[in-house]
Amino acid sequence: MKLASYKDGSRDGQLVVVSRDLSTAHYATGIATRLQQVLDDWNFLSPQLEDLAQTLNQGKARHAFAFDARLCMAPLPRAFQWADGSAFINHVELVRKARGAEVPESFYTDPLMYQGGSDDFLGPCDDVVCPSEDFGIDFESEVAVITGDVPMGASPDAALEGIRLLALVNDVSLRQLIPAELAKGFGFFQSKPASAFGPVAVTPDELGGAWQGGRVHLNVESVWNGKRVGLCNAGPEMTFHFGQLIAHIAKTRNVRAGSIVGSGTVSNKDWSRGYSCIAEKRAIETIESGAPVTEFMKYGDTIRIEVKGADGMSVFGAIDQRVAPLNR
Amino acid sequence: MKLASYKDGSRDGQLVVVSRDLSTAHYATGIATRLQQVLDDWNFLSPQLEDLAQTLNQGKARHAFAFDARLCMAPLPRAFQWADGSAFINHVELVRKARGAEVPESFYTDPLMYQGGSDDFLGPCDDVVCPSEDFGIDFESEVAVITGDVPMGASPDAALEGIRLLALVNDVSLRQLIPAELAKGFGFFQSKPASAFGPVAVTPDELGGAWQGGRVHLNVESVWNGKRVGLCNAGPEMTFHFGQLIAHIAKTRNVRAGSIVGSGTVSNKDWSRGYSCIAEKRAIETIESGAPVTEFMKYGDTIRIEVKGADGMSVFGAIDQRVAPLNR
Repeated sequence: MKLASYKDGSRDGQLVVVSRDLSTAHYATGIATRLQQVLDDWNFLSPQLEDLAQTLNQGKARHAFAFDARLCMAPLPRAFQWADGSAFINHVELVRKARGAEVPESFYTDPLMYQGGSDDFLGPCDDVVCPSEDFGIDFESEVAVITGDVPMGASPDAALEGIRLLALVNDVSLRQLIPAELAKGFGFFQSKPASAFGPVAVTPDELGGAWQGGRVHLNVESVWNGKRVGLCNAGPEMTFHFGQLIAHIAKTRNVRAGSIVGSGTVSNKDWSRGYSCIAEKRAIETIESGAPVTEFMKYGDTIRIEVKGADGMSVFGAIDQRVAPLNR
Repeated sequence: MKLASYKDGSRDGQLVVVSRDLSTAHYATGIATRLQQVLDDWNFLSPQLEDLAQTLNQGKARHAFAFDARLCMAPLPRAFQWADGSAFINHVELVRKARGAEVPESFYTDPLMYQGGSDDFLGPCDDVVCPSEDFGIDFESEVAVITGDVPMGASPDAALEGIRLLALVNDVSLRQLIPAELAKGFGFFQSKPASAFGPVAVTPDELGGAWQGGRVHLNVESVWNGKRVGLCNAGPEMTFHFGQLIAHIAKTRNVRAGSIVGSGTVSNKDWSRGYSCIAEKRAIETIESGAPVTEFMKYGDTIRIEVKGADGMSVFGAIDQRVAPLNR
């Protein structure tokens, strides 16, 4: 089942069920109006949505209409939690190596994770608005899960059972703000503006065998200004699976329905696969030649992020954004 | 106007208007059922609630009932944002001095702030559940604001206009988890479990002259195991006012309705006023005698936090919690 939130002028959008091939959609009216509502009452509402999805996929839904990703908000336009891991340790190794720092041993057993803002997510085709190009505007292509309730103390295996939906994320980062911010000791804040999400969130069964061991075994394609810069596999090299990431959160608190948990930048050891964020390209340049060459994004730049399934079909639809100045 | 969310088995509770003296309450049914709904549509809904509050305060509300803080959830039982400042620089100075570290000059001009989890807040009388006493369980008495929409780039003055409600917070902290977590570089995570909120959130006018310059000029009383340990003024020594804290968030993103922004532990230079968190008491002990003496909270410990107005009346009602183990 694939779900999206259509722009309707409201804060949470209008829930639609989308066909597997992303060609048609159908309002979920009569079942639920908002995605959070479904997550709050998953066992009761999701079977009804599954029925509608099946009818839609069979071409038998009577009020189906053509699906348009440009009309989408984020599947959850605002959420009660956005916790982003940095689960591809290769990314951490590269960035640290570039600045001559070691990766602490604990990073291989204890997930790195930050709490992000979740009150104002971007839709897949919304502009990345930034007050200054000097902030070092970067994309981060990653995958995420949306959870049901997971109680405090849950094991990684139990936490896996709490996964309701998978999603695609552009975790926009402002690289030039990061060093000073992390030096303050409290983690990211201004350096992590609103993240954007792919048009649809999908139940794990939509991935078939590619959803395995709590990981998404598919390539994440990143296309910057029309040029493919990355085709990185989100599966095997994810050091911590999503159950482990959720359990990390749940160590000292309950994780409530609608929490979104990210993988962090998808990153592979094989550099020929390219990169899922510019910071990584710059790290590689620094390692190879002593200094970064590639500049961060400028106003007008575009970023397109997409994941295709084993059948070649787009799983989440594409994130397709343009960087823009703040017009006050 | 004072507002609370009564426990009714739902995730967001039932909105009630509470009388100024906290003696009576009235369901807001017919106006709004949830507080987030009011924040989403403040200009339309809040005048209607104000009318009800006035009727209630005059003793004329026909279906008023006795208010009971023990039946309260947090005013926003879950929120789209919890951003906690550390705006009392005295607290930062003490903690740093105790470990022989300097306070960077920038801390006096650039607010320190972390993004906290907001999917599962505690009601004022809910247990502080923690899996282990070894985590270093501590309270943090602070005040907070709940905002409307504040656009990216808002000035501190403009941000002040976005404040809708004030609240009282126990920002529970797990001190023994903090050093290792901050050393990872991404800020707090497991060391900041669910925060608790006072029974009612109040519009700024409820404070009269004590709400001034974006600060709460009232004493926050902290009573640990029945003994008053702190009576710290939340006003004059707050280095950054709430407009500045909100503007800090808004530098690179929009702040959306229902965002909760905290002051950080209320802390005064005059040590005779006591402390609003045990960490500060331990810092003072370390400065005075080389090592901390006071231990963190144990299972069964209680913490009571309250703020009284110039008229002697409780502004937010009391946070009154007990520390408890996790029963799985």
